[in-house]
This record gives sequence, C-alpha cells and structure tokens, in this order.
Amino acid sequence: MRGARIRGRLAARGLLLNLAVGLVAVGLNSDPPVRQATGPLLPIVLWCCLAIFAFDWMRHVRRAGAHAGAWLRSLSGLIETLSVVAVPIAFLLGAAEPWLAGTLWVLRLIPASPSLGQLGRVLSTERRALSGVGTLFVIVLVLSAAMMHAIEGSGQPTVFGTLPGALWWSVVTLTTTGYGDVVPHAGLGKLVAAWVMMSGLCVFGLLTGILATGFAAESRRQDFLRSWELVRHVPFFASLSQSGIADLARSLRRWDAAENVVVVRRGRRGDSMYFVVSGEVEVEVDPPVRIGPGGFFGEMALLGEGVRTATVTTTRPSTLLVLDIADFRTMMALHPELASAVESAARQRAAWTEAK
Amino acid sequence: MRGARIRGRLAARGLLLNLAVGLVAVGLNSDPPVRQATGPLLPIVLWCCLAIFAFDWMRHVRRAGAHAGAWLRSLSGLIETLSVVAVPIAFLLGAAEPWLAGTLWVLRLIPASPSLGQLGRVLSTERRALSGVGTLFVIVLVLSAAMMHAIEGSGQPTVFGTLPGALWWSVVTLTTTGYGDVVPHAGLGKLVAAWVMMSGLCVFGLLTGILATGFAAESRRQDFLRSWELVRHVPFFASLSQSGIADLARSLRRWDAAENVVVVRRGRRGDSMYFVVSGEVEVEVDPPVRIGPGGFFGEMALLGEGVRTATVTTTRPSTLLVLDIADFRTMMALHPELASAVESAARQRAAWTEAK
Amino acid sequence: MRGARIRGRLAARGLLLNLAVGLVAVGLNSDPPVRQATGPLLPIVLWCCLAIFAFDWMRHVRRAGAHAGAWLRSLSGLIETLSVVAVPIAFLLGAAEPWLAGTLWVLRLIPASPSLGQLGRVLSTERRALSGVGTLFVIVLVLSAAMMHAIEGSGQPTVFGTLPGALWWSVVTLTTTGYGDVVPHAGLGKLVAAWVMMSGLCVFGLLTGILATGFAAESRRQDFLRSWELVRHVPFFASLSQSGIADLARSLRRWDAAENVVVVRRGRRGDSMYFVVSGEVEVEVDPPVRIGPGGFFGEMALLGEGVRTATVTTTRPSTLLVLDIADFRTMMALHPELASAVESAARQRAAWTEAK
Amino acid sequence: MRGARIRGRLAARGLLLNLAVGLVAVGLNSDPPVRQATGPLLPIVLWCCLAIFAFDWMRHVRRAGAHAGAWLRSLSGLIETLSVVAVPIAFLLGAAEPWLAGTLWVLRLIPASPSLGQLGRVLSTERRALSGVGTLFVIVLVLSAAMMHAIEGSGQPTVFGTLPGALWWSVVTLTTTGYGDVVPHAGLGKLVAAWVMMSGLCVFGLLTGILATGFAAESRRQDFLRSWELVRHVPFFASLSQSGIADLARSLRRWDAAENVVVVRRGRRGDSMYFVVSGEVEVEVDPPVRIGPGGFFGEMALLGEGVRTATVTTTRPSTLLVLDIADFRTMMALHPELASAVESAARQRAAWTEAK
Repeated sequence: MRGARIRGRLAARGLLLNLAVGLVAVGLNSDPPVRQATGPLLPIVLWCCLAIFAFDWMRHVRRAGAHAGAWLRSLSGLIETLSVVAVPIAFLLGAAEPWLAGTLWVLRLIPASPSLGQLGRVLSTERRALSGVGTLFVIVLVLSAAMMHAIEGSGQPTVFGTLPGALWWSVVTLTTTGYGDVVPHAGLGKLVAAWVMMSGLCVFGLLTGILATGFAAESRRQDFLRSWELVRHVPFFASLSQSGIADLARSLRRWDAAENVVVVRRGRRGDSMYFVVSGEVEVEVDPPVRIGPGGFFGEMALLGEGVRTATVTTTRPSTLLVLDIADFRTMMALHPELASAVESAARQRAAWTEAK
Repeated sequence: MRGARIRGRLAARGLLLNLAVGLVAVGLNSDPPVRQATGPLLPIVLWCCLAIFAFDWMRHVRRAGAHAGAWLRSLSGLIETLSVVAVPIAFLLGAAEPWLAGTLWVLRLIPASPSLGQLGRVLSTERRALSGVGTLFVIVLVLSAAMMHAIEGSGQPTVFGTLPGALWWSVVTLTTTGYGDVVPHAGLGKLVAAWVMMSGLCVFGLLTGILATGFAAESRRQDFLRSWELVRHVPFFASLSQSGIADLARSLRRWDAAENVVVVRRGRRGDSMYFVVSGEVEVEVDPPVRIGPGGFFGEMALLGEGVRTATVTTTRPSTLLVLDIADFRTMMALHPELASAVESAARQRAAWTEAK
Repeated sequence: MRGARIRGRLAARGLLLNLAVGLVAVGLNSDPPVRQATGPLLPIVLWCCLAIFAFDWMRHVRRAGAHAGAWLRSLSGLIETLSVVAVPIAFLLGAAEPWLAGTLWVLRLIPASPSLGQLGRVLSTERRALSGVGTLFVIVLVLSAAMMHAIEGSGQPTVFGTLPGALWWSVVTLTTTGYGDVVPHAGLGKLVAAWVMMSGLCVFGLLTGILATGFAAESRRQDFLRSWELVRHVPFFASLSQSGIADLARSLRRWDAAENVVVVRRGRRGDSMYFVVSGEVEVEVDPPVRIGPGGFFGEMALLGEGVRTATVTTTRPSTLLVLDIADFRTMMALHPELASAVESAARQRAAWTEAK
Repeated sequence: MRGARIRGRLAARGLLLNLAVGLVAVGLNSDPPVRQATGPLLPIVLWCCLAIFAFDWMRHVRRAGAHAGAWLRSLSGLIETLSVVAVPIAFLLGAAEPWLAGTLWVLRLIPASPSLGQLGRVLSTERRALSGVGTLFVIVLVLSAAMMHAIEGSGQPTVFGTLPGALWWSVVTLTTTGYGDVVPHAGLGKLVAAWVMMSGLCVFGLLTGILATGFAAESRRQDFLRSWELVRHVPFFASLSQSGIADLARSLRRWDAAENVVVVRRGRRGDSMYFVVSGEVEVEVDPPVRIGPGGFFGEMALLGEGVRTATVTTTRPSTLLVLDIADFRTMMALHPELASAVESAARQRAAWTEAK
C-alpha cells in the first residue's frame, strides 16, 4: 500500500510537470517567430502533453469503474475532461489558434490545491457581507460614471462621451489600478475622481476586513479538526477529559515530516514539544532510542534550560503534532495529570543524556 | 400567508430585473450611434422601467396607508421617490440628457441589500478611528501638495503651478492609483513622491486594520443575535442552562434552505449536525422518516466514522441551525446532559439505517 | 462651568472653520490668475486667518500662566507656534510664495484629533514588526533597482541609466502606484517587474496584517478603559464582583448623547439597554418618568418581545453606557444577581406602560 | 561584560552606518557624470566600506574559532561572506559596473533585523493558505492573458500578439499596478480587464486576510514567550499559581529602557504599572528611593486617582515589564493574593509621597 501511495505522489508530480511544460509550450507557440524558428518541436511537445492528460483521464475513468459517471460529473472530473477535449474541439471548430485552448489546462491546479477549498469556504461563509461590498462597488461605479459623463462628456467625447466609456474609467479608478489612458481634465471631474479613489480605498478596506475575519474563523476551524482526529490516536492523551482534548486540539499543529528530517538539534534553543502520530523518530543518545506512534519528545527543553539535549531525526515519513511552548505552559497549568505524566517521563529520560 | 410571501419575493426579483434592464438601457441610450440605430426601442424600454417603478411606488404608498408620510420620510421611501421623480424633473429642467438621471435607480439596491446595513454599522462604530485616518490623509495630502508645488512648480507650471493642481497629483499618488498624467521630474520631487506613496500604504493599512477589527466585532454580534432567537424555538435545548444557550448561540450558523435541497448525502464525509427550526426534512431510510421543527439530524457522522449514513432532503423551505464539528465536540464536552441526549437519539436512529 | 465648556467647544469649531478658510485661501492664492482677479481679497482673508491663530496662541500662553514654557515645548504648543510664525518667517526670508507656508496650518488638526493618538500608539506598539516590513521593503527596493539598472540600463539609459533612476521605478512599482512613466521593455526586465509587483502585494499584506492586529488590541484596551471608569459611577453595579465589573467593562460602549436626542423609540425593535452615567432622560409614559445618573432603561425590550414599549429622550447632554443584547444575555447568564435586579426593575416598570 | 555589550552595540551601529554610506556611494557611482565630477572620492569610499565589511567578516570568523565552518554555513555567515566576495568577483569577471554588486550589501539587514524572522515564521505557518492564493493568482493570470490575446491580439499585435506579451498586461493589471503602457481597446477586452481588476482586489484581500490572521497568532505567541521568561525572574510573582503566571505572561509587555529615561512623570495621568526585571529605577521622593530587580512601581495611580504621585527615572539600562491598566484590573480581580500584595505595598509607599 505504501508503494501505491508513493506511485500516486510521483504521478501527481509528473502531471504538475506536464502542466508546466504544456503551459510554457502554449505560450511559446503563440509567438509566430518562435513557432517558425522551432519548427515541429512545439507541436510535438504539445501533442505529447495532451496525450499524457488523455491517458491520465482514461486511467481515472477506468479506476472509477462503476462510479465513472459520478466522477465525470464531479468538479475534478469536469476539469480533467475539459483539459482533454478543449484543444481537439478548438481544432474541430477551426479556431485560428487552437492551442490557445491549452491554457484551460491551468484549471487542473484547482483539484490539486487543497487550500483552494479553504478559500472557497471563506468566500461562501462571508457571501452575505461580500455581496454588500459588491453592492457598494456597483453604486459608486454607476453614479461616478454618470457624473463623469455629464461633466467631462463634452470635453473628452471619445472617452467620456458614452456611459459605458465612463464606466471603464470608473472601474479602472475605483480599483486604484489607474492606467492613465483616461483622465479627467475639468476641476469638477477631478473632485469626482478623488472621491472615487477614496471610495476605492474604503471598498478595498471593507473587502479585506471581511476576508480577514472569515479567514481567521475558517483557519481556527481547520486546525481544530485536523488536530482532533490525530489526538485521538495518541494513547498518552487517553487520561485527558473531553474538554482537555478540545483544549489540546486547539493548540496542536500538525507536521508531516519526510524521512531523515532533523526535528530537533542538540544545543539549539527549543520552544516546542512533539507527539508522534505515525512513523518513527530516533533520539541520538547512546545507545540510540526510537520513539514510535503514541510517544513524545522535546519536552526536556521546555521543562529545563530551554536547550535541546539530544538530536532527534525521523527514520521514515512521520506525522508529528507540535505543541508550542506557550500552549505547553498553559496545558501543563490547566491539566496537572498531563503535567505529572510529562515530568515523570522527562525525569526518566534525563538518564539517557546524562549517561552519554 | 405563504402565497403572499412568494408574491413578495417575486415582486422583489421583478424589480431587480427591471433595475438591471433600466440601467443597461440608460447606458445604451447615452451612446448617440446606438440611440439612432435602435430607433424608438430604447425610449420605450426606459419609459416602461420608469412606469414600473412609479407603479411600485404607488403600491407602497397605498399599502402604508396612514403611515405613508412616515414611509416617505424613511430612507427606503426617499430612495423610491427619488427614483420615480428624478427623470421627469430632468425632463422638466430641459437637461441635455434627461435619461442620465436614471442612473439614480441604482440607489434602490441600498434598501434591497440587508448586509449594507451591517457595513454601515461597522463604519459608524469605528467612526472615531476612521476620522483619525482621514485627518492623517488630509495632512499628508496638503503638505505633500505644498512641497510639490514649491519643488516642481517652476519646472512643470501647467500641472504643479497651482496648489489645487498639485493636490490632484497628491490624491492620485496617495491612493496609489497613479494615473501617470502628472509625474515629478526633479530628484527632490521624486523623494517627496516616494514618501507620499509609502504614506499611502500606511494610510491604507490603518484603514483596513480598523475596518477588519470593526467587522470582526459586528460579525460576531450578528451571528449571536440571529442564533439566539432561533435556539429559543428548539425544545431540545430547553435543558440547557442560560450560559449553555449563550455558548451554543455563539456556535450555531443559520441556514435557510429551499425546498428539495439535499442537506447531507449518504456516503459523503460529514462535519456538521443540523437542528430544524422550521420546515421539515426527510431522511431517506426505509421507510422514510420525516423530522420537523425541534428535531435534529446529522449527529451520527460526528459520533461515528465521519461518514453520512443516510441522505437527508428538505421537503419544504426550512430554516436549519448548523453546528460545526469543532463546536459540536466542545459543546458535548462542556454540556454532558446535551451529549447524552444526542447519543441516545443516535443509538435509537442507528436502527433505521441498519434495518435498511 | 458648563458655559465655559460650551465656549470652549465654540472656540474649537471657530478655529476649525478658520483653518478651512485659511487653507482654501492659501490654495486659491497659489494660482496667479485667481490672485489677480480677486485683487486684495485673498491677502486680507489670509492675514485675518493668521491674526486669529496668533490671537488664539496668545490666549493659550496667557491661560497657561506659569506653565507657558511647558506648553510651548509640548506637541500642541510647538504646532500652534509654528502655525503662527511660519508665514512671517517666509516673508522675512523673502520666499517667492510666502503664503505657501500657511499649509503648515493643517498640522493644527493633529492636537485637535483625539483618535490620531490612538493610531500613534498602534504604530508605536507594533514598531518592531513594522521595522521588519520596512527592512523587507528596502531590500526588495535596492535589489530590484540594481537588477533593472543592469538589465534595462543600456536600452533606456535616460531612465534606468543610473541606480537612483532605477530606484524611482522600483518605489513606484513596489507600492503598486504604477505611473507608467518608466516601464521595462526587455523580457527579463518584465519578469523582475512582475516579481517586484508581487512583492509589493506581500509587503502591503504584511503591513496591513500588523496594523490590523495592533489596532484590534489597542481598540479593545481603549474601550475597556473608558467603560471601567464609567461603570464605577453606576451604583447599580455595586453588587457585582470585581471580575463581574471587568466582564461588564469589556461589553459596554460609551455614548455621549446631545440634548433632546431620542434614544429609543416606541414600537421599534430594540437590541440594547442603557445605563445613565451623567445627564438625564425622560421616559414618555403617562405621567412622564425621568431617569438620572445611576439609572437604566431599555431592558424591557430585551427581556420581552424585543419591541420598545416607550420612547425615551435625553433632557440634557448625557453620557450613556450601551449594553448590546448579545452581551446582555451573556451577562445575565453569568451574573444571576444582576439578572434578578434587572428583572425586578422591569416588572415594576411594566406598570408604567400598562397604565398608559 | 557590560563593556563588551556596549562595544557590540557600537559595532552594530558602525556597520549599519557603513552599510548606508556604502549603498549611497554605490548609487552615486552608477551615475557617470557624478562619477567624473567626484574623481577618486567614490572609489575610495567604496573600497573603505568593502574593507570594513571584510574586517568584520574576519573578526567573526576568528571569534567563531572551531565553529567557523558552522558559522560560514549559517544564513548570517553566508550573507556576510557574499557581501565581502561579491564585488571582487564582479571585478574578476570583468563586469561593466562591478560596484553594482555592492547592492548585495543590503542583504546584511536580514540578520540585523530580529523581526524579519517573525515575518518569516508567519509566511511559513500560513504557507498552505498562501499557496492557495498563489494558485488563484496563476489561474486568473493565465486565463485572462489567453482571453486578451484572443480578443485584442489582432487589434494590438505588438502588445497582445503573443501570450507572454498578454501575460505582462495581466500581471500589471492583477496587482492593480496599472502602468497604462498596455491598455485594452475593444469593449470585450475592457470587460475582461474589469474582471481581472476585481479579481486583483479579491486576491489582495485574501492575501491580507491570511497574513493578518497569521500575524495575530505569531504576535500573541512571541509576547507570551518573552514575558514568561521574564516573569520567572520576578520574585513578587512567586505566590502565583501556574495558570496565574500564564495569565500574567499573556498580559505583560516588555520594555527595554535606556539610562536616565523618565518612566512615569509626577502629575501625569497613569495607565500602567511596571515591574523591574533588571536594572534599577529611582523614585523622586524625599529622600529618593531606588527600586531594583524584582520590585515594582506605578501601582498607586492605578489604585487611586489615576495621577502619578512621583516621577520615576531609570538609573541604568533596565528591562521593565509593563502591565496595562485593563489587564491590571483583570489580574487583580482574578488573583486576590496578588491584589492584596500590591495594595499593601501601595499603602506603605503612600507614606513616601505624603511625607514629601
């Protein structure tokens, strides 16, 4: 099963590489001189990329088996299908630059990026407030365009002569992009423009305030959920009450460490302790000690002088839970049973390093 | 009464559509070639939109009855009146483009958008701090304009020759819009400009910080209020102490689901449970079970394997309270009486799906 | 004493008006055609404004008496002195536009704006983190300017030919102002520019994040302090424990209401109750009831149907403490002694409105 | 040892000055006219700066002794080495402007700025969410470039004729920089541009929201850690329970005051009390009282009338812990043993000032 997971990860990296190569090739292919200079190279690369995506699509469909229909209707399936059929369809329709449809491949990043879902949830939770900001945006946009059309319309008829033209100026100014292709000349127009720019700052500030609030809530929730699941697998916490586990889950941060990663280094200042959820670490004392799932380490620096007394390295890919010193102190203060368990373990371990 | 509510919602949608059509027509009408090409079409559309607004205004006045005077003086009444009389007044005054006054129709979005009130409250709560930022803005604006006028006035007399002209540059730069129509040439002027741009970033950062802080507080308050009202209608929570209800109200999120909406789907991962405040849902087990106001569902995925054991669909428009898994765990830990009630209900229900 | 306070407020408003008139006159005076057209008007206005500032300065010095020296060295004193002597000094030095020094009058807004001090404290508390962002800003600025000078220096020697010239481009781009007067032409230069713009977004995001964090902390602290002082003057809270007062002080918001302000209106929905710290309000029942310092009102809507049962108006300028419904519920749940006191008062008062 | 610390601080300031001088010289040296006008001055300054950096590097290597290898591989060592060898290497490679490599000296600010590490930790903690925003950024970038290439490619072939060219426009617009060198002309192109600008606002808002959330968490953690260490050295807090210390550590702010700094001034309003961690302060009563490590002062203003009763000055560089009035009140309420200790000390001290 581990082999399958590694194969899966390699396949994911391969597809990302294929995506990068494909997008660069699409970009170069859009430049006629480059296209002529490289001869048949670019089309070959592009067809190869497309073939790989098509092969991956077929692999997914076959693996889904009976669920193939459901997978094809899922977001992930729709995007993969689109990335396979977009270019052939462009060729069939006789588009001037059929490979331009290859830019749709970039959508494959959506299912590949887990944190996009998080951002999506923030936008969805705050949709009411965001719609309020959107309304504000539209009102300022329309009224400022109407004012500018009335004020500058006669002076600059080509750009402010129509309401849609004035709207272009409004959107460029309200987002504080400010191309400068259309600029008010009259004094009154400049006053309106100053008001639009300041409204832009406010709209922007409100938008950011809403997203910051939503993101803080979502981030708290995610961390809690991830930790809660893991805490249940650490026997050491079995003695904790339900509310103690909730406290702890709020404090822990997950860390997926690769193989042979140095987690703590002897002599460095330490400001966190670690619980092993899966995998294994080796403490470099004499003789070396291995700590497996359910064990913990790094508590000695937090209890003592703040300096790591031994180097600890992962022996295989491991999932660790990191407890920060600030939260460590709070947890120890609130849960004496945890404190005494950690301290007795630390006393016992002190022998390892002293012996050395 | 339900028919009346549906009629009300249809009327609101119709007015929004009318607003959209009207604004597009106003926009197209401002473009002479389009106006000539479409002949009498645009005026007809515009007069129809105006007529619909006038009809809606009359309906409101008649329905308000004795309170008509009060309604006309309210924000909503003022805006509706304005949207009816603006265009006729523009015609009476012999404006060059009377239909341009139709852009004022966009103000009708203000009473239609409930979350604008929320933003307004944030701005009002933070008005002291915002006025501080405004003062900072004005000071930087005036001083930088004076400096630029002194430095660049002789070199670029047409744009920096007067203080108001230099103010235009200042506001464009301080909001980081940067049209580029007016740019300092002297070295000293560029130094001043760099200072103004960096001040712009700081002003912007302060503004956003203030609005983010205010929005977080307002958002917390809103959610609490909405939940509190609803929690009181769920008999299941009757056993909770006052502080337990306050805790719960802080955690719950309201969801107004339409008819035939799938709330949870069998086999999907579940991370929240639901309380029915009004309406009804159907659990797709054999035979189907219906849960009405005061009931709850979705707790089994939170207590067990995290996978939904049955699909649940609304049978009519329903108001649900959503309890997130993170808050669910905390609530169960803090309120054992709630935990045992939920668990006994879950045990009883397990039979439904097992039987199936 | 009350007369003195009103006189003080009038004087403050008069000075603000004088400041506004003075700044507009300085602005107009900088425009030669306007100066010629208005003849001796502008100089007269300007000299009057200066005279008023000088008179105000003398009044302050005389009132400070023995402390005049200390006042002159304080921020407020320095700014007032500067606003008086700047223009005469400019005349003495034979400046081309002596009245331009009048723009320094805008600094008088600093002592007049209490919330600027709050922003100053935020900047001071977060100065360590802000200096980190500043360092990041400088590093990106210098390195990007060096790169652009190396890349574009030969192609566009007039603008990228020197490092200071390239720095101008960097600062315009890094603050995302983007005048467009200097733009990279080479492909590599555009890549560097893209990196600078994205760094600009990050620098901006960090800056805003820091200020938002600092502002949230400062804002919490201010509100607490202001409420704490006031809570001590309300006898009703005497029964509360120290931690109860701390809880309450965190929840209350101060409101300085003018005379004859309608605080709550009969029939409206109510979502807060009020404590009178100073001043007096009148409850419009029959016969009217007056509530003075230490009293409270508005609790009936929170306990009952959520609708105000009587209109309450201030009879003189009053300071009220506003307790939001969300915090009201929490306070009542946590402090039963407060809850029973409020409820017994409400029962007693219900008679007033029923009688009516 | 104190002499060594002062020497260390002087050396750090000297190096910062050297850095500033060096960077200005590099800037001036890049300007051919300036270079010619100043003759041999600039090269002399530059070589001196380089020599000082080289000398500092040698001093560091010698001081590191056996750990020299480790130091050279650390971030600090790499940057110092780079700042010494960059210019000589540029000379050896025969670069057109070898001194341009001197801009790399600015990297020396990184190890010199402790708060950059804090920002780095924020970016690292939030890397998952930031990668989500980055993905969103890339998707909007690629798709908008493809659309603009298709729409405007024929109309403006020089700027939108190739996909990389259109990407330049996309990045300038999406970051809301808006140079204005490339602007859509077609109506459809302007619609796409408006969408890109609004996406830019959202991307920016999400970025800021993430960084604000991360910074708030990191800032809380830092303050806690710094205070915790210090609280342990104040004997006055020995009576506090573990959770009391955790509470206190969350409230205190560290202040490193120089010698002869006035900490509180008689007659001013006071809103915080101070604990002396190291150093010493003198209370200006008659006779003067000195308070050393473990002592505290400033509590009388918080307990009494809010006005400082005596001036307190540091007699040497001191580390103080500042307890804000808001937190003071909460701490006193929650920890009666602390309250009584502070109050008894205050009563005793009242004699000092009364005697005076």
